[in-house]
Amino acid sequence: MSLARASLNQYTVKPLSLIEAADACVRHGIPAIGVWRDKIAAIGLDAAKRELAARQLRVSSVCRGGFFPGRDAATRRANREQNLRAIEEAATLGADVLVLVCGPTLGTHIEEARAQIAEGIDLLVPHARAAGVKLGIEPLHPMLIAERSAVTTLAEANDLVARIGAQDVVGVAVDAYHVFWDARLETELDRARGTIFAYHVGDWVTPHGAPDVSAARALMGEGCIDLASIGGWVTRNGYRGPVEVEVLNTRLWEGDQEALLREVVARFEEHVAGTLGAGLTAA
Amino acid sequence: MSLARASLNQYTVKPLSLIEAADACVRHGIPAIGVWRDKIAAIGLDAAKRELAARQLRVSSVCRGGFFPGRDAATRRANREQNLRAIEEAATLGADVLVLVCGPTLGTHIEEARAQIAEGIDLLVPHARAAGVKLGIEPLHPMLIAERSAVTTLAEANDLVARIGAQDVVGVAVDAYHVFWDARLETELDRARGTIFAYHVGDWVTPHGAPDVSAARALMGEGCIDLASIGGWVTRNGYRGPVEVEVLNTRLWEGDQEALLREVVARFEEHVAGTLGAGLTAA
Repeated sequence: MSLARASLNQYTVKPLSLIEAADACVRHGIPAIGVWRDKIAAIGLDAAKRELAARQLRVSSVCRGGFFPGRDAATRRANREQNLRAIEEAATLGADVLVLVCGPTLGTHIEEARAQIAEGIDLLVPHARAAGVKLGIEPLHPMLIAERSAVTTLAEANDLVARIGAQDVVGVAVDAYHVFWDARLETELDRARGTIFAYHVGDWVTPHGAPDVSAARALMGEGCIDLASIGGWVTRNGYRGPVEVEVLNTRLWEGDQEALLREVVARFEEHVAGTLGAGLTAA
Repeated sequence: MSLARASLNQYTVKPLSLIEAADACVRHGIPAIGVWRDKIAAIGLDAAKRELAARQLRVSSVCRGGFFPGRDAATRRANREQNLRAIEEAATLGADVLVLVCGPTLGTHIEEARAQIAEGIDLLVPHARAAGVKLGIEPLHPMLIAERSAVTTLAEANDLVARIGAQDVVGVAVDAYHVFWDARLETELDRARGTIFAYHVGDWVTPHGAPDVSAARALMGEGCIDLASIGGWVTRNGYRGPVEVEVLNTRLWEGDQEALLREVVARFEEHVAGTLGAGLTAA
C-alpha cells in the first residue's frame, strides 16, 4: 500500500484527457487525481464527476483558482466569476482543495498586486464555506512572479492565511518544488500547522535549458530537493491527505506517457511514500 | 552629476577586457567599476591596479569570493585558498567590498551546504579584517540554488551576518534582481541597517527564454522590479556607496557593447539615480 497517499496531478501527463488520466490512475494503482479546469471543461463537469466516481478516484485538488490581480475593476470582476465557477467545480467533484495560484505582479506594482490578492481571496471566503470547499494558497517559486504568482514564499502565504482569518476555509498548498529553497521552510511549515491543505512533490534541477520556466520540473529523486525532510515537516504539522505528483515538463509531455507513469509510481514509492508516516484521512 | 553613484559591473559588458571596460567607464562618465577575478587574472593584478588607478576609477567590488561548500575537505581547502587570494586582490585594488556568492547545495544536503558556508565565511574573517576588506554575502535568486548559492534570501544572509558576529567585516550585498520578489524585503533591509555593503541593480522579465538562467537579466526599467522602493529602502538604511549595474545577459553580450553602455547610462539616470537620495561616501 505504498501508493495509498499518492495522487496524480493531471498536468504531469498533460497530453492525456481527464478520462485517459483517470484510467491511467486505475491501471497504475494511484487512488487519487488532481484535475485541471481545462480538462474538466473538455468533457463537461457532469461527465467529469461521473467518470471519476465510476473509477472510485479521490479528487485531491482542482487546479486552479486565483489570478486575482487585474489592472481594472472589470478584469477583477471577471476573475472573480472564474473563481466562483472553480469553487462550484471543486464542490461538485468533492475535491479536497481548490488550489489558488494567486496571479502575477502588475508591472512594478508588486504591493498593489498583493493587496488585490488578499482582497480577492477574502471575497471568496463565504462562497467557499457555503460550498464546503477549502482554498489552498500556493506560494510559487519566485521565478514565476511575473507570470504566475506574486505570492512567492510560504511566509507570505501564512501571513495571508492569518490576515484573512478563516482557517476553516483558507490555508496553504505546499509544493516542494516551489518552496524547497527557503531556509525558513521548516519554521513556516510549523507555523502552517493545521492549515496545510495540500502537499505536492517534484524535484528541481538547473540548468534546465527549458524555454518555459514554468514547465521544467524534474521527477522526484532527480534533483536537489530534500523530500525526506519536507515530507517529515508536512506530516508532523498534521497533513494526512493525498500527495500529488505535479511535474510539469515539456520534454516529458513529448515522451511516452505510460513509461512516465511507471516512473512516477516507482519514484513515489522510493522517494516519497516513506517520508509521510502512517495514515490517510478520509476524503 | 546623476551618474555620481553609478558603477559598471564588468560582466554587464562581459566581452570587454578589464582595460576596455575601464576605458568605457571613463568615456561614459561612470566613476566606478565592479571587476571580476577572471578579468583581473587576464592582465595580472599589478597591471589591473595600475590601469584602474590611471583612470581614477573607484573599484566598487571584486566579484567574487565564495563557493564554500565542497564534498570533501580537500575541495573546501582549495576553495579557501581561492578566497584568500580574492581578499588579497580586493585589498590591492582598494575595492569597497568582496562579493561572496556562497556556493550551491550539495545534492539534497542543503543544510550541510549552509553549514559549510557559515564555517567558510567565519574562517575568512580575521584575514579580511587584517587586509581591510569587507565581505558582502549576496543572497542569490532561489532559481540559482543548484548552481550558484544556497543562500537565497536576504533573511538568510542577515541570519549569517548575525551568527558570524563580525559586522565590521561581514555584511550583505543586495542585488535587486535577486531579492525583489520577497514580501519581507523591506523588513529585512531594515534589519540589515549598517551592514549593507553593496547595492546592485538590474531588472526581471519572464519568460526570458534563456538556456542559461543565470544570464537572462533585463536592463533597469524593462521589467517588474520596483527599483524606486528598493533604492529608497537601501538608502534609508545607510547605504551611500556606488550602485552597480549588473545585467548578465547572453543576448546583450552578443550585441554592440557601446550601444549597450549608452542604454545602461540612460536607464541608470532614469530609473536609479533619483531613488538614492544625496551623497556618496568616500572610497
